[in-house]
Amino acid sequence: MRIECIAIGTELLTTRRVDTNSVWLGEQLAAMGLGFHRKTTVGDSQEDLAGLFREALGRSDLILITGGLGPTFDDVTKEIFAGILGAELVEDAGSRADMMAFYAARNRVPPQVNFKQALIPAGAEPLRNQVGTAPGVWWQDPPGHPGVRIVMMPGVPREMKRMWEEQVGPRLRPLAGREVHTLRMVVAGVPESNLDERTRAVRERHGHLDWTILANLLQVELLVRGPDPAALAAVRADLEPVLGADLACIGDGNLEDAVLDLLKARGETLAVAESMTGGLLASRLTAIPGASTAFLGGATAYTVEAKASFLGLDPAWLGTVGTVSDACGGAMAEAVRQRLGATWALGICGNAGPGVEGGAPVGTVFIALAGPAGTVVRSHAMAGDRAEVQLRSTALALDFLRRQMALLGIKH
Amino acid sequence: MRIECIAIGTELLTTRRVDTNSVWLGEQLAAMGLGFHRKTTVGDSQEDLAGLFREALGRSDLILITGGLGPTFDDVTKEIFAGILGAELVEDAGSRADMMAFYAARNRVPPQVNFKQALIPAGAEPLRNQVGTAPGVWWQDPPGHPGVRIVMMPGVPREMKRMWEEQVGPRLRPLAGREVHTLRMVVAGVPESNLDERTRAVRERHGHLDWTILANLLQVELLVRGPDPAALAAVRADLEPVLGADLACIGDGNLEDAVLDLLKARGETLAVAESMTGGLLASRLTAIPGASTAFLGGATAYTVEAKASFLGLDPAWLGTVGTVSDACGGAMAEAVRQRLGATWALGICGNAGPGVEGGAPVGTVFIALAGPAGTVVRSHAMAGDRAEVQLRSTALALDFLRRQMALLGIKH
Repeated sequence: MRIECIAIGTELLTTRRVDTNSVWLGEQLAAMGLGFHRKTTVGDSQEDLAGLFREALGRSDLILITGGLGPTFDDVTKEIFAGILGAELVEDAGSRADMMAFYAARNRVPPQVNFKQALIPAGAEPLRNQVGTAPGVWWQDPPGHPGVRIVMMPGVPREMKRMWEEQVGPRLRPLAGREVHTLRMVVAGVPESNLDERTRAVRERHGHLDWTILANLLQVELLVRGPDPAALAAVRADLEPVLGADLACIGDGNLEDAVLDLLKARGETLAVAESMTGGLLASRLTAIPGASTAFLGGATAYTVEAKASFLGLDPAWLGTVGTVSDACGGAMAEAVRQRLGATWALGICGNAGPGVEGGAPVGTVFIALAGPAGTVVRSHAMAGDRAEVQLRSTALALDFLRRQMALLGIKH
Repeated sequence: MRIECIAIGTELLTTRRVDTNSVWLGEQLAAMGLGFHRKTTVGDSQEDLAGLFREALGRSDLILITGGLGPTFDDVTKEIFAGILGAELVEDAGSRADMMAFYAARNRVPPQVNFKQALIPAGAEPLRNQVGTAPGVWWQDPPGHPGVRIVMMPGVPREMKRMWEEQVGPRLRPLAGREVHTLRMVVAGVPESNLDERTRAVRERHGHLDWTILANLLQVELLVRGPDPAALAAVRADLEPVLGADLACIGDGNLEDAVLDLLKARGETLAVAESMTGGLLASRLTAIPGASTAFLGGATAYTVEAKASFLGLDPAWLGTVGTVSDACGGAMAEAVRQRLGATWALGICGNAGPGVEGGAPVGTVFIALAGPAGTVVRSHAMAGDRAEVQLRSTALALDFLRRQMALLGIKH
């Protein structure tokens, strides 16, 4: 089945707005053993849309479209497909009723322009929109194109996802081949090139599977896909000894999940004291539901005053050792560990730029880990802009803790 | 000039990896008064690539390609274009020398596979890569396609951006029409539909300009583009009274920049105490260079212990009033304001889900603002998942402070 995705919206061509819908849809298809052969983003121009729709009808069996179903004059997805395929647009009573109910629940009356949203090409089926007013369209075997399926969904991610999960996904699943399983292994603390080299022999041994290595500032993901769970289990068994302590987790999680899971399994807790990362480490941990079982909290001690008030550090002493120093990082970690009674504490100080701070060049970072066996401070010199240095520092801190936990048995 | 973008990489079709390159390029073109008529993402399949490249040569004057220039067997951008256009690939001595120097600087020798990166289609010009090993290609008037320009750039964002800024952008600027200016106004605290309605009359009055309204969880952006700065100044003058206190800032910044700028202009400071948002508010502020002038720091008081230790709140009292309550939010704000000696302090507590916490349903949020004139607490009931509730809460908190500052004269 040749599948393509079309995302409609001029703002996707000219602004910072990212088409996340097609990324999400690509993952959903991959889990069914299906995949896009291409994705296209196009603006609201009727001529560009008509050209693209004609091409798509000629090359794809399944066309997934997001956007252009709204009430305004430049929402013309249905109109253009109907025009190309010579079909009338007819009002769907159910869609009209849904829209009336949507507005009634909010004590409002739909504006006149909204009624065009209830129009559906003759021969197509409406897809109900449970969280918005624009219904979608499922158009199977449109005139002149037997075997083709056109699926139109709203551009609003929440509406599109709900429509996919409840209506589109279930209709496509029977058309998919064998279910595809994914083995996902997250590796931290090593560059992508290193991982590429170390895993080469295993990848060659299991060359019939689909391999992807994805690196970002925080971690490297290894994705292996195939129809046979036993084959993936064999890959996992081969990779575990190769990856050793660099393997952070297997499955859906990321580095922060790995750290929280380890803490919970050991019955231990974590506190953080952040200067340069300014709350980013804490926010990555608290983004995870249930973090409070192991994460007690932290101080964003961005200034000397905050380091004094929250952590009890002496401003005069800070003036001597410097606020970008191993001594400062270590004292931050030890103070927050003691104040919150945590098993472990991470302290981060440094200079994320753009200017030189306290004599420390941009990219200088001290990461301290205080734990049951004492305090260790590591220094780093990083390249990258402010956001990169901040993000990478949180990854290094989490990985530092993860590796120390692996080295150190549980002591209470 | 018809311009299209092609992003190459199977991982962009099947994984969470987002093609941010084309988004960045779209913004760069918009600033020159140019724009894509479409963007396509395609995998590494030679057949798919060849088909797409042939189409692009038939419909576009400028083809911007990212990816597929690396050393591996599935990096075939140059090879396929050369094949379609009947050109030889010849080694470029400068590109080979650049690559040797890149490796020499790292005390390494290039692997044999890397040498194919120095091959360039005959008749094309290499684009130097200052931060990686894959040179780009500028191919003007390729065989059989006079007037067409093919530009191949690396897929690594850092390498692509540098190549664009130093080599591609400067070559394209003379081809662009009049420079295009952008008026960007950021509005907070009102939904997109409200903004759409209120600005309609002004938009109609200045209908010859290019208008875009972009909403996300944090704010709504109004983008107006046009060649004449005076016309944009007139739009701004018309919009300012319409937007009133809802206008957070004009220019490049966002809500957090607006708050920090206001604080700095008033010579005031801010501290935060976060429970449910767990450091996210602090990290949004400290993402901005120079935040420490006005942002003193904060407590991530995620647990009762942290609320006691960092903020001096009595655990027994918290047990009585509840950790998701207006009393708790207010006490958090007042305590952190007093401890850090800040002019203003924000306190956030609530339940971001997924489970009910302290009897409060998911989406319950209390935002407290302590300032020179006392403390005000607002409660909110939000829809959305954990990440949405956390993010939206930080936006509401910042906007709360912004509006209070506007209402209250400076008192010291």
